[in-house]
Amino acid sequence: MAIQIYGDSISGNCLKVKWTLEYLNIPYRWTETSVLKGETRTPDFLAMNPAGQVPLAILEGGRPLAQSNAIISHLAEGSALIPADAYARAKMWEWMFWEQYSHEPYVAVARFQVTYLGKAPSELDSKLIERAHGALQRLEEALVGATFLVGEDCTLADVALVAYTRVAHEGGLDLARYPAVLAWIVRVEAALNIKD
Amino acid sequence: MAIQIYGDSISGNCLKVKWTLEYLNIPYRWTETSVLKGETRTPDFLAMNPAGQVPLAILEGGRPLAQSNAIISHLAEGSALIPADAYARAKMWEWMFWEQYSHEPYVAVARFQVTYLGKAPSELDSKLIERAHGALQRLEEALVGATFLVGEDCTLADVALVAYTRVAHEGGLDLARYPAVLAWIVRVEAALNIKD
Repeated sequence: MAIQIYGDSISGNCLKVKWTLEYLNIPYRWTETSVLKGETRTPDFLAMNPAGQVPLAILEGGRPLAQSNAIISHLAEGSALIPADAYARAKMWEWMFWEQYSHEPYVAVARFQVTYLGKAPSELDSKLIERAHGALQRLEEALVGATFLVGEDCTLADVALVAYTRVAHEGGLDLARYPAVLAWIVRVEAALNIKD
Repeated sequence: MAIQIYGDSISGNCLKVKWTLEYLNIPYRWTETSVLKGETRTPDFLAMNPAGQVPLAILEGGRPLAQSNAIISHLAEGSALIPADAYARAKMWEWMFWEQYSHEPYVAVARFQVTYLGKAPSELDSKLIERAHGALQRLEEALVGATFLVGEDCTLADVALVAYTRVAHEGGLDLARYPAVLAWIVRVEAALNIKD
């Protein structure tokens, strides 16, 4: 039985899972599940994921797994997307936890409010904008002179961070200020064969 | 050379690292680093961790590692704190990412504002309180009839979640509403030999 993914195609967190599955040639079925339409809050969905969030993977035997970065960590075990070196692997986790705590809540939320809630960028909370730029600036500094976030190969750290960084401009965040980030996005999209 | 930890003893994120090191009998040196005094924002500290956060581990060879859940994942590799079964390991990650995204930003922040910024619980943002209780309620539902968060043994999921849950009352969050959580805290403290 193929892995079943409940995902919303407008969500970077969900696209991380799609890209990882396709990169690794893992068969899957995708059930489009709209956050805006409340489809993650129905009793049926909450029975599968009490957190009421997508992405949600239903693995072999009907076993559910939530949290984008947990899902891609599971799917990619044993692949080149996870470094074999213990320290490099730990740095990958560092970026992935940082992404969920210090990047997604600002960069993704700015985009959501502008693109899906219809706010003007000028209406966004100034602290949100400041923290979003702080996260992008930190990425810029890490990527100057680097190929990928951890070493010379594309890892799950890049998968996790590129998801909302590549669409940050949709939240009014001007990526032209971050040239190393822009060049890295091109490299990650090429490595993962991201087309849209 | 022993592992060097920069940590703030009032921070649950830092205590996760301390408990893991002591449980695994890993020698370490602890440098108390106060967030409130700005010691994580000095040029020297930012040179080690550009995110300006504790905990920070300096591993063998002077290699830095940040993010509490990344540090404990690295320290505990190969130990019983990480399940050998792939699905159980993935569920552990699910809880750890959920902790940083949906629990810590509410449960820990409520406690920080009350205990360290001197706010009255009644002054806290109502959405913050609602989300903190939402996180605690989700833990309660997961723990009814369970021994630990993943299977029958204490894992890093328990380490990560117990850190701020056990001090949630310091943020005015009444844990008496969550009897399965209270019983689990006792089990995790016993398993990890947490004394204070």
